[in-house]
Amino acid sequence: MFKNPFFLNKGPFKFNFIASKVNLPNNELFSQDTNNIFDFKNLNDASEKDITFFHSVKYKDIAKKTKANYCITTEKLKNYLPSNCNKIIVDNVLLFSAKITELFYPDSITDDDNHNVNLIKEIYPNISAGKNTLIGKNVTIGNNTKIGHNTIIEKNVIVGSNAYIGSNVILRNTIIEDNVNILDGAIVGKKGFGFFPDKLSNHRYPHIGYVLIKKNSEIGSCSTVDRGSSSVTIIGENTFLDNQVHIAHNVKIGNNCIIAGQVGIAGSSVIGNNVMIGGQAGISGHLTIGNNVQIGGGSGVIKNIPDNSKVMGYPATNIKQFLKNKKK
Amino acid sequence: MFKNPFFLNKGPFKFNFIASKVNLPNNELFSQDTNNIFDFKNLNDASEKDITFFHSVKYKDIAKKTKANYCITTEKLKNYLPSNCNKIIVDNVLLFSAKITELFYPDSITDDDNHNVNLIKEIYPNISAGKNTLIGKNVTIGNNTKIGHNTIIEKNVIVGSNAYIGSNVILRNTIIEDNVNILDGAIVGKKGFGFFPDKLSNHRYPHIGYVLIKKNSEIGSCSTVDRGSSSVTIIGENTFLDNQVHIAHNVKIGNNCIIAGQVGIAGSSVIGNNVMIGGQAGISGHLTIGNNVQIGGGSGVIKNIPDNSKVMGYPATNIKQFLKNKKK
Amino acid sequence: MFKNPFFLNKGPFKFNFIASKVNLPNNELFSQDTNNIFDFKNLNDASEKDITFFHSVKYKDIAKKTKANYCITTEKLKNYLPSNCNKIIVDNVLLFSAKITELFYPDSITDDDNHNVNLIKEIYPNISAGKNTLIGKNVTIGNNTKIGHNTIIEKNVIVGSNAYIGSNVILRNTIIEDNVNILDGAIVGKKGFGFFPDKLSNHRYPHIGYVLIKKNSEIGSCSTVDRGSSSVTIIGENTFLDNQVHIAHNVKIGNNCIIAGQVGIAGSSVIGNNVMIGGQAGISGHLTIGNNVQIGGGSGVIKNIPDNSKVMGYPATNIKQFLKNKKK
Repeated sequence: MFKNPFFLNKGPFKFNFIASKVNLPNNELFSQDTNNIFDFKNLNDASEKDITFFHSVKYKDIAKKTKANYCITTEKLKNYLPSNCNKIIVDNVLLFSAKITELFYPDSITDDDNHNVNLIKEIYPNISAGKNTLIGKNVTIGNNTKIGHNTIIEKNVIVGSNAYIGSNVILRNTIIEDNVNILDGAIVGKKGFGFFPDKLSNHRYPHIGYVLIKKNSEIGSCSTVDRGSSSVTIIGENTFLDNQVHIAHNVKIGNNCIIAGQVGIAGSSVIGNNVMIGGQAGISGHLTIGNNVQIGGGSGVIKNIPDNSKVMGYPATNIKQFLKNKKK
Repeated sequence: MFKNPFFLNKGPFKFNFIASKVNLPNNELFSQDTNNIFDFKNLNDASEKDITFFHSVKYKDIAKKTKANYCITTEKLKNYLPSNCNKIIVDNVLLFSAKITELFYPDSITDDDNHNVNLIKEIYPNISAGKNTLIGKNVTIGNNTKIGHNTIIEKNVIVGSNAYIGSNVILRNTIIEDNVNILDGAIVGKKGFGFFPDKLSNHRYPHIGYVLIKKNSEIGSCSTVDRGSSSVTIIGENTFLDNQVHIAHNVKIGNNCIIAGQVGIAGSSVIGNNVMIGGQAGISGHLTIGNNVQIGGGSGVIKNIPDNSKVMGYPATNIKQFLKNKKK
Repeated sequence: MFKNPFFLNKGPFKFNFIASKVNLPNNELFSQDTNNIFDFKNLNDASEKDITFFHSVKYKDIAKKTKANYCITTEKLKNYLPSNCNKIIVDNVLLFSAKITELFYPDSITDDDNHNVNLIKEIYPNISAGKNTLIGKNVTIGNNTKIGHNTIIEKNVIVGSNAYIGSNVILRNTIIEDNVNILDGAIVGKKGFGFFPDKLSNHRYPHIGYVLIKKNSEIGSCSTVDRGSSSVTIIGENTFLDNQVHIAHNVKIGNNCIIAGQVGIAGSSVIGNNVMIGGQAGISGHLTIGNNVQIGGGSGVIKNIPDNSKVMGYPATNIKQFLKNKKK
């Protein structure tokens, strides 16, 4: 279950306050509802004291079992929810979800805290760190970890032991385990690319998650790993990312994976263990890639891939089929 | 009409001086021509006091109406030009165009001015900016704008109000309107990738344009947006670019567009309003993409796309056709 | 022949010491072998005093002529080697090659030397360099070279005359000739993405090579050029790389090439002269691309391409064939 180690929950709020603050449709109907709501969580994690959201039929099996007392959803989906759950019907579930998350976690919208930093040597006088490297609030660094020059460890970062953080790196909202390498110019833990059109001004989705980079892994130069929106972005143990790789919010990569240069993985996809991905391949969002999968360089994966498959092409298909088709 | 807010025009020059300086073919023919030439402009913008260039039959309709008194062109194209226009016939129109632009705008070749910078706090003592952030000549920053650490606002930059510029950002020759976010590690306003082979040494094309980022937009981490060569590179209002996106010189993107990670748009293409582009898609140069177009992730667009289309594949075609072909 | 200008060879070592240190299979068989081994080199460069490796039948013609007295290889390949060469049979040639290289060149595993740097102005008081730019050990900079802000020239770097190094650049283990431009945010000379699975912990391949950027070339913003593992990564004369290009270890690019944005070239491929590569194209590892080749934007090249070809698509094929197939 997702716990939030970094962002401060400003709740609880009474439900009528929430309804009026985010301007729910017909919010006058809720003006007498003074129940306390403690958190905004996904269908699975929400307790009866929380509010949740349900926006796609894909999640109907989880919806049936949610414990949440309140759920933002649509006319079409509402009947999947348990009868004791209060259904709040809106046109754009994700937009209202964003607004409610923002109410509970106002710090999660922007990444612009730039005042509370110090030169790292002022905090860790004995650390092996280069020139001009900065650390912010709520940062812990383990033993024998080395850090390069001009690196910014902004806030909400835990770095394990024997790690190596290069130069010009930017870290925030990230847990880095032992023996991890973060190479020069990587940017880890920034808010993801999530927002919802709201008339003429896009509404930034709050990102209250974080990034977890497990032990013995490596993030290549100029790679970007965005933090989760309402869960964790995970890079598994002993998994290596080459240069200029982009990992979007909520992606979860297993152990012992090798991901070559310029690969991109879109939001919320889950990659198994022992997966090899060739250079410049792309994986769409919300997919599941099995264990021991090999994806050819330059491929575009747009559907789930079962364990032990070798795929190639765009859309990526079985590699033998791909090469056979091309010979026709 | 394109006006140049940043680069200083060193003209006017007499035509015989230009001819000899850039070594026009048969330049002895022009040795008596002492007409003053005030600027080097494109076919559309040139007045009768300017010199222009005409290098592709694609522009023949504009060429017929140019007011320029002098035009660099080829034997093949010269007859499209008005009779009162002096046609200067060369083999390589773009190479001579580059040389003449360089004569008028010598500062536009390199981006290497690194002396005239100050720590931003010395110029704006009350600004909310991080450590080691620098600003150069001809920079203005609006109210309530926040800036991260190690950012370099080199020269010729106007930033509006309520903007957020992250850390490790580099800006030059750029106008940023209100409420814009430029995320960590983005590089905006550098010279574009334009040059012409000249025997054994490529000739860098001058880039006298700039970048305009309209209000409420966002540029993602490690993205690059190059300035225009002889016009403006534009990111429209409320348009969002994800991480590692590359926007080449002279590209114009409309309003309310969403451009996912690792997309690349080649030089001089024009993108409409409300366009959505999936991750890793590429758009070739000099294309026009209509309004409300959706381009699938990983697609390669090599021709114009009409309004309201959904395309996918390489070359990108109608999305239904693409998926049908793949099922064969 | 490859000479190593930067990494210190800790050899010679007696063979029985090597065998026990890297834990060769049956290493007790070698316990009496006290021959001195001077270096670990490739099949072509190794002298009779060196140890080499032979891991793929592709290199059988070179293997037949190697002068090395010792060679790490497999049961299957051993018979290609000369009779007087001592064949060391292992399952995973590259893994043992990595371990032996690491024994000779322990500095080549990590890029984490961050202590021995100075502000560049302390070493070159008259240089035209920006703020906070650092240089490390074993760095030489030529006349009239300009450098931006926040750039880190870490160690083992030679920069020629009249070069321009932008801001936020990171250089190490690199030779840069005259008149080269390295644009903002480029990272050149870091270790390549090479390692070998060894049970549950990947084994980082040592990178004892360097990067050579020949005169009049340009490396674009946010591009990455990794150093060679056991040879040189070369960017030829007058060759231009656009932004966000990734060049992997051991790649060799010829003269007068133009490589557009977001191109990726995988390890050890060799590119001829006068090659043009469109944006986002990818080239697999260990390929040979001829002279005067044109590769369309977005293509995926997975086999060798002969001189004077124009190719497109994925896998890249003759451009006319590609467009004809797509019209079907």
